Amino acid sequence: MANPLIDDRLVDLLLRDVLQAERLTALPHFADHGPETFELYLSACRQLARGALASSYRPLDLEPPVFEGGRVRLHPRFGPLFTQLRELGVIAATRPEEVGGQQMPLTVSTLAHTYLMAGNLSVAALAWLTTGAAHLVEAFGDDAVKERFLARMYAGEWTGTMALTEPHAGSSLGDLTTSATPAPDGTYRIRGAKIFISGGDHDVAENVVHLTLARIEGAPEGTKGISLFAVPRLREEGGALVDNDVHVTGVIHKIGWKALPSLALGFGDRGDCHGWLVGAPHQGLRMMFQMMNEARISVGATAAATASAAYHEARAYALERRQGRALGERGGEPVRLVEHPDVRRMLLRQKAIVDGSLALAATTALHADLAEHGPEDARERHRLLLDLLTPITKTFPSEAGFEATALAVQVLGGYGYTSEYLPEAFLRDQKLNTIHEGTTGIQSLDLLGRKVMARGGAGLRVLAEEIQRALAEAEAAGLEEGLRAPLGAALGQLGALTATLGQRGMAGDTLGMLGHSVDYLTASGLLVIGWQHLRLATAATRRLEGGADAFAEGLLRGARYWMATEVPRVAHLCRLCETGEPSYLEMQPEWF
Amino acid sequence: MANPLIDDRLVDLLLRDVLQAERLTALPHFADHGPETFELYLSACRQLARGALASSYRPLDLEPPVFEGGRVRLHPRFGPLFTQLRELGVIAATRPEEVGGQQMPLTVSTLAHTYLMAGNLSVAALAWLTTGAAHLVEAFGDDAVKERFLARMYAGEWTGTMALTEPHAGSSLGDLTTSATPAPDGTYRIRGAKIFISGGDHDVAENVVHLTLARIEGAPEGTKGISLFAVPRLREEGGALVDNDVHVTGVIHKIGWKALPSLALGFGDRGDCHGWLVGAPHQGLRMMFQMMNEARISVGATAAATASAAYHEARAYALERRQGRALGERGGEPVRLVEHPDVRRMLLRQKAIVDGSLALAATTALHADLAEHGPEDARERHRLLLDLLTPITKTFPSEAGFEATALAVQVLGGYGYTSEYLPEAFLRDQKLNTIHEGTTGIQSLDLLGRKVMARGGAGLRVLAEEIQRALAEAEAAGLEEGLRAPLGAALGQLGALTATLGQRGMAGDTLGMLGHSVDYLTASGLLVIGWQHLRLATAATRRLEGGADAFAEGLLRGARYWMATEVPRVAHLCRLCETGEPSYLEMQPEWF
Repeated sequence: MANPLIDDRLVDLLLRDVLQAERLTALPHFADHGPETFELYLSACRQLARGALASSYRPLDLEPPVFEGGRVRLHPRFGPLFTQLRELGVIAATRPEEVGGQQMPLTVSTLAHTYLMAGNLSVAALAWLTTGAAHLVEAFGDDAVKERFLARMYAGEWTGTMALTEPHAGSSLGDLTTSATPAPDGTYRIRGAKIFISGGDHDVAENVVHLTLARIEGAPEGTKGISLFAVPRLREEGGALVDNDVHVTGVIHKIGWKALPSLALGFGDRGDCHGWLVGAPHQGLRMMFQMMNEARISVGATAAATASAAYHEARAYALERRQGRALGERGGEPVRLVEHPDVRRMLLRQKAIVDGSLALAATTALHADLAEHGPEDARERHRLLLDLLTPITKTFPSEAGFEATALAVQVLGGYGYTSEYLPEAFLRDQKLNTIHEGTTGIQSLDLLGRKVMARGGAGLRVLAEEIQRALAEAEAAGLEEGLRAPLGAALGQLGALTATLGQRGMAGDTLGMLGHSVDYLTASGLLVIGWQHLRLATAATRRLEGGADAFAEGLLRGARYWMATEVPRVAHLCRLCETGEPSYLEMQPEWF
Repeated sequence: MANPLIDDRLVDLLLRDVLQAERLTALPHFADHGPETFELYLSACRQLARGALASSYRPLDLEPPVFEGGRVRLHPRFGPLFTQLRELGVIAATRPEEVGGQQMPLTVSTLAHTYLMAGNLSVAALAWLTTGAAHLVEAFGDDAVKERFLARMYAGEWTGTMALTEPHAGSSLGDLTTSATPAPDGTYRIRGAKIFISGGDHDVAENVVHLTLARIEGAPEGTKGISLFAVPRLREEGGALVDNDVHVTGVIHKIGWKALPSLALGFGDRGDCHGWLVGAPHQGLRMMFQMMNEARISVGATAAATASAAYHEARAYALERRQGRALGERGGEPVRLVEHPDVRRMLLRQKAIVDGSLALAATTALHADLAEHGPEDARERHRLLLDLLTPITKTFPSEAGFEATALAVQVLGGYGYTSEYLPEAFLRDQKLNTIHEGTTGIQSLDLLGRKVMARGGAGLRVLAEEIQRALAEAEAAGLEEGLRAPLGAALGQLGALTATLGQRGMAGDTLGMLGHSVDYLTASGLLVIGWQHLRLATAATRRLEGGADAFAEGLLRGARYWMATEVPRVAHLCRLCETGEPSYLEMQPEWF
């Protein structure tokens, strides 16, 4: 039986009951949509994901791109798959009709995206990178730049990249040194080196447009002197496409996402690399954060998707494979692996991580939709939630999803340790998610140093209201106290801690505030995923009023597991933050 | 700078101060040894590990064995490395002089083993597998069998395997079906299929001897009808070595330990596979457990070694690489990664896992030495500790070591995600340790179902005495209460829980007793590693009395980290066991 990748029942429940996505269609921006168009798009993506994408996954993993003659050649099956994605309209799905898009809510496209990423993340990522790059051009480019790049990017004829990282600077974008020199024709000459550029060259579309961060000569130092440029591999000149002096200088040998090349690129070795300024000078980082914030939600959704694909592999194996006897039994026939309590533990833990992560990604996407297109008077509230949830949505599925994927390997035992089965490949893929688009450490500083503290803690207050509302609904639906009380307690603990840390920040005690930022982020993740499970359990309880329902029973057990096993950990993590437990803060470099 | 693999200062401290290994040399069995012979052996292993073994690690990882013409060919560098190991006397290091060994304490050889495994685990594992197989022959074989196999195995001219697992049965050895038919010449004809046989064929020694589990015709069903046989690839006949009808039927594509082949083997396809019975009929599993128990300590030591090698990669990178600014700073030059609190957190967490795991492996080995060769009246006590600590020593370093190795990847960021750096390979290697020689789930049932409950809970009582003694010594040495109190509390919690679970077991409530066995094992691991850190901190405190000592400062911070961050988790895990938290126990297969 083919891997379903994502549980359709969960997606349906999220859209209909938990998030009530249909209410989006009452908004002017989504007026042409309805449950049918959502379903049409989702089912087209599902079908492609479970069919051609998934069946090509391992072949593409086994034969990575080839770097030859200065160019990168992808696996021969990559191009046709990418064409199918283009034809589905995946690249511009969420973009307005006027730029060739479907104006689909991000809520729906994020869930559709999980199928595609679970099926074949390297192929889906090329589409997704193109969306992000084109969206930057759409949002900030002037008419000439849009005219030059936008339609072809949204059509997938040209693909896009984010060209941020430089070899010496890594995550520290303020240190980048790629330069942009104004030219008489109004464009700039770009010169510098970038690294880890995903999709930076390939043979499956005519051109690649690098949305590149660089410093205009004389710009301020640090993050405030960075500008954004569109830098194509080939530029149009006299009706033809000519080489734009962007060269592949090396291929990174990644351990996962193998079909998608990650490259080192050199810009302007011959002094002939033309870049088109996007937006105002020195505003590049601010603009790039639009793309990065979208990317962070997408990374979380992808991590959930990979963990989900791995879970379904483990689930199918445990339901099929017979081995050992039931606990306390000696005779009789071997039982299915799923009969062993510890295997059930591993599966339920995976399921709780996957369901919670998918729900969180969809929830964050919903707030993004409402922040941009919702009723005017509510936008601010949704913006606060979106900002607060983004680093958690990026991180929780990535960190917990790695653990979940490792559990899938474990369920398969010795077979899981071989490349005859898929979980090991998903495990390699998964590790990237805690690193790219901002590491877990960076997300934790973003959450605690910026998002939580912004506007006097308004974000956390709004989140607390949402969680309180969910608690009230759960109580009204008759959910037992054990499913509610831990969440209420954890919310109180995190709130009190945040006030304490905020005071430290105000008093200038940066280390006292941020020294345990990852513990704070972990605690926030446990809480926010608990909120998702609470809502899933409420919806499940309502379903069970209609009669026996295996899916709802599983959701209830996942929620109970999370409330009993994970949410109580918040107290301990809060204590570490609050006491400022000094062990690693005191460590001197020479003591390691 | 080359990776030191294991911190020599820690090994010294363990042998001299914490374990006082010198006292072993007062025992008759180790009378020929002294600190100098220990040091000689250790430094020879260190040198080989840091030199030839480590420098060949990546080439061997990149070019796995080739299966061609029915035979398996290893990497060309494998043979010479294996010869160097042989010449060091690694294979028989712990075995008596009368069989060609060095009669080295397991305590010392386990620590030496960590260097070798950290340097190149595939090569070192072939030596180690041979030790285990030969030890079975030594312990249980009759004179004729010993004469036939023993000397050549301990000399490494012939290597050994453990041939247990069969494709359909996996971990469930009671279901194995390989058959042994008595032949007129006193040997048996073996027929069956085995899988995951590490070192099952190769070209770096003349012969391979498979210590094989099979059923003699008419034997009882289940685990009580299993016998042990020595089954060579080539058998001696008329002064020559002839084919013994053992064939490689497939190569497993493992994701790590790549240089060591893991094979599917067919025995007796032509009806001409001779096996020599080792020990009494139907006693095979009991004997095999001798090897498996040794193997389990070795797996724990290996997991610690791999995590250590990964930690040292991350440490060196973090001390060298400059990126970003110190927390709260904006200007100035980029600082070293190690200056960032979260990087320090990741490094200290790795270090605490590594140091604790190495100390635990050495401690368990010491109890093995004393259980076998110690004063008669103390052997029982050490045997109880050995039995109790073995599943924890197998599991804690494997589970936590995987997390630690993933943190090493994380410290290197995008570079960590590439095969240009070593941590990703160590991460792949590490995942096997939670699976082979009994999965974590199996270890948890062994600990809680057998070891803890054996003889009215005597093992845990003895462990509690050891921990109380360490607490008293720590207090006497002046360790602050925060370094002691959490451990005392956790010990009390685990003791009370064990009594409760024991009562459930006595009352026939198997699920109530064992349903949370992995939580119990995890809690035991946190406690036992806390005990190690307590002893390391005590030794460190004494060192600091002698003046500034960077190593001791690091040990103290590692211990504090563990007591503050990990040991308090025991309470929550105990609560899950005690309440029998029912989520996954209730899960029905169709609810997944």
